[in-house]
Amino acid sequence: VSDRADRADRSIIVAVDAMGGDDAPEQPVRAAAEVSRGTDIRLVLVGRVEEIEHLLGEQEHERSHIEIVDAREVCGMKEKPRAALDAKPDASIAVAARLLADGKADAMVSAGSTGALVLAAAKHVPMIPGIERSALAAVYPTKKRSSSDDPFALLLDVGATVRCRPRDLLFMAYMGHAYASRISKVARPTIALLNMGSEPTKGDKDLVAAHQFMAEDPRINFIGNVEGNDIPTGGADVIVCEGYVGNVALKMAEGVTEVLRGLGKYAFKRSLLWRAGLMLLAGGLRRLKGVTDYSEYGGAPLLGFRHPIIKAHGRSHARAIGNAIKVAAKASRDGVCEEIEQAVADFERRSQAGQA
Amino acid sequence: VSDRADRADRSIIVAVDAMGGDDAPEQPVRAAAEVSRGTDIRLVLVGRVEEIEHLLGEQEHERSHIEIVDAREVCGMKEKPRAALDAKPDASIAVAARLLADGKADAMVSAGSTGALVLAAAKHVPMIPGIERSALAAVYPTKKRSSSDDPFALLLDVGATVRCRPRDLLFMAYMGHAYASRISKVARPTIALLNMGSEPTKGDKDLVAAHQFMAEDPRINFIGNVEGNDIPTGGADVIVCEGYVGNVALKMAEGVTEVLRGLGKYAFKRSLLWRAGLMLLAGGLRRLKGVTDYSEYGGAPLLGFRHPIIKAHGRSHARAIGNAIKVAAKASRDGVCEEIEQAVADFERRSQAGQA
Repeated sequence: VSDRADRADRSIIVAVDAMGGDDAPEQPVRAAAEVSRGTDIRLVLVGRVEEIEHLLGEQEHERSHIEIVDAREVCGMKEKPRAALDAKPDASIAVAARLLADGKADAMVSAGSTGALVLAAAKHVPMIPGIERSALAAVYPTKKRSSSDDPFALLLDVGATVRCRPRDLLFMAYMGHAYASRISKVARPTIALLNMGSEPTKGDKDLVAAHQFMAEDPRINFIGNVEGNDIPTGGADVIVCEGYVGNVALKMAEGVTEVLRGLGKYAFKRSLLWRAGLMLLAGGLRRLKGVTDYSEYGGAPLLGFRHPIIKAHGRSHARAIGNAIKVAAKASRDGVCEEIEQAVADFERRSQAGQA
Repeated sequence: VSDRADRADRSIIVAVDAMGGDDAPEQPVRAAAEVSRGTDIRLVLVGRVEEIEHLLGEQEHERSHIEIVDAREVCGMKEKPRAALDAKPDASIAVAARLLADGKADAMVSAGSTGALVLAAAKHVPMIPGIERSALAAVYPTKKRSSSDDPFALLLDVGATVRCRPRDLLFMAYMGHAYASRISKVARPTIALLNMGSEPTKGDKDLVAAHQFMAEDPRINFIGNVEGNDIPTGGADVIVCEGYVGNVALKMAEGVTEVLRGLGKYAFKRSLLWRAGLMLLAGGLRRLKGVTDYSEYGGAPLLGFRHPIIKAHGRSHARAIGNAIKVAAKASRDGVCEEIEQAVADFERRSQAGQA
């Protein structure tokens, strides 16, 4: 928490993986140029210096807000993350992560490979004491929720983990609470556990234990178990689950929207009316894609580390990466990670006192 | 397997839970009346005799094909299954299950509560030797699959289990293979494991072990891991997963279609064109609902038992229940359960010989 007091007196420093994303370094550099002019955020662009300098030369930017750290190598979007990082330990994504570890940046943004980001963070960035599983949170629009005016909800974890123990799931509830209350400004976000039914006894013993942990925790506004349909319909501001389940659910939604977009080709209905309806709806379906393009809205936070890390979508344009940079700076300024750290420390203290 | 030879000489007997479903006993009895006239299937209607007799009196039916077994009590669709079955051990769904156990029926159909059916089957119906986890299989339409002309694919388990061991998942692959090849007539159905990525090393150690079991098994046409988006897009004829994940995925699709139907109310787009498109699409969305109404198509098989058990949707009309009865009879006639039994026995033999 002393870290946060320290940051209050100065600008937040965000490390940007300039080589990550489908259109890098162009889009990350354009994003940094834009942010440098409109905010007091300090940017550290990590990547090939000459390419970054060249691109910066083409944009209006505030040079005093931008530093460049050289990294010659890149983890490609389609490379196998572990092999790529092993082969290229000084890839931009790893160098940016090390800036966090070395105290040279307060937060990090990458539009590179999700797998590489999760691995680079795990390898280089210190985790919050007590947390052993990080979580990638999908930020997605839902139907109007009674609990909040915010159009977006959080689902975590969607792929940083496979399986989780009850305490990992509780800590993910802390992460979701801290992020939703400080970034989405939902004062008292509703938290739910993704399960196979609403009763507290549903699921296996780990899900039952996770339910009990959350139900007994005064820090979070736990509303109980929800089911898969409650993800898109907005059953809670924050829905917690292990990565295997969250990843399948997210990709299931992706697949359903893909099928919808392709419905015109379905053999079983080919009327003109149907086609006309589809054409009219095309714009709407593009909207709906937002349900699955979880990093379109300022990016997907990778939580559990001592510093905010934001994954922007690989296809992000400068504007989306710029949003991610601002969200990362805000998460650092507003002490999201410190709140999670405090919650975990309180839990550990209660556990040791035999109260949890 | 001798059972099957025995059945070759006579009509198949299907026990029908006459009291199960939103509109019972009317729809199950109408279904039985229809099937009694059009096929040689023998039907045992389980429920309140006087109500069944009264309804039969209103329908054309072949009385010599129908038997009635009295059961005074009913597990309601909205009751908690375990408590309801404990309180009403002679509920129609339990009595029908006991007919299977006692050799008085070859197969069973219920449109009652899924939870009650899973519990009643577990309590009364013998499992296939070696199988410890039953599986409920969703039968749903996908995009056109390269592997098959059949519009429907199988996802199992969608809720009979929570967690599964590698061997449980392998046995589910056998179940899916037997059902798809004999009922859907896909000669060599493609089988996939639902995971978080395509590489054989993805997931936790259980998923890796399940992948290896399936990859090494000559009996099934295993094509590897698939991800959530491959469920609706038709990545395989049969997709295998534990019940927690399958249940969430299925309900996620349900939620996405619900959101779509409600899109007109979304604040972010209210143009006339958009509304017109939605109205035109309404018929298509009703179609799409089929993705989640998994028992509309002859019902969802509950597999792992020595006799075929088909769950028809609670909202089923007589026609859908009739289809479920025919599918149940066909599964019995075609030896689906015997094929699964043989596959499991072969696996156990290979295991004991140290080859599996």
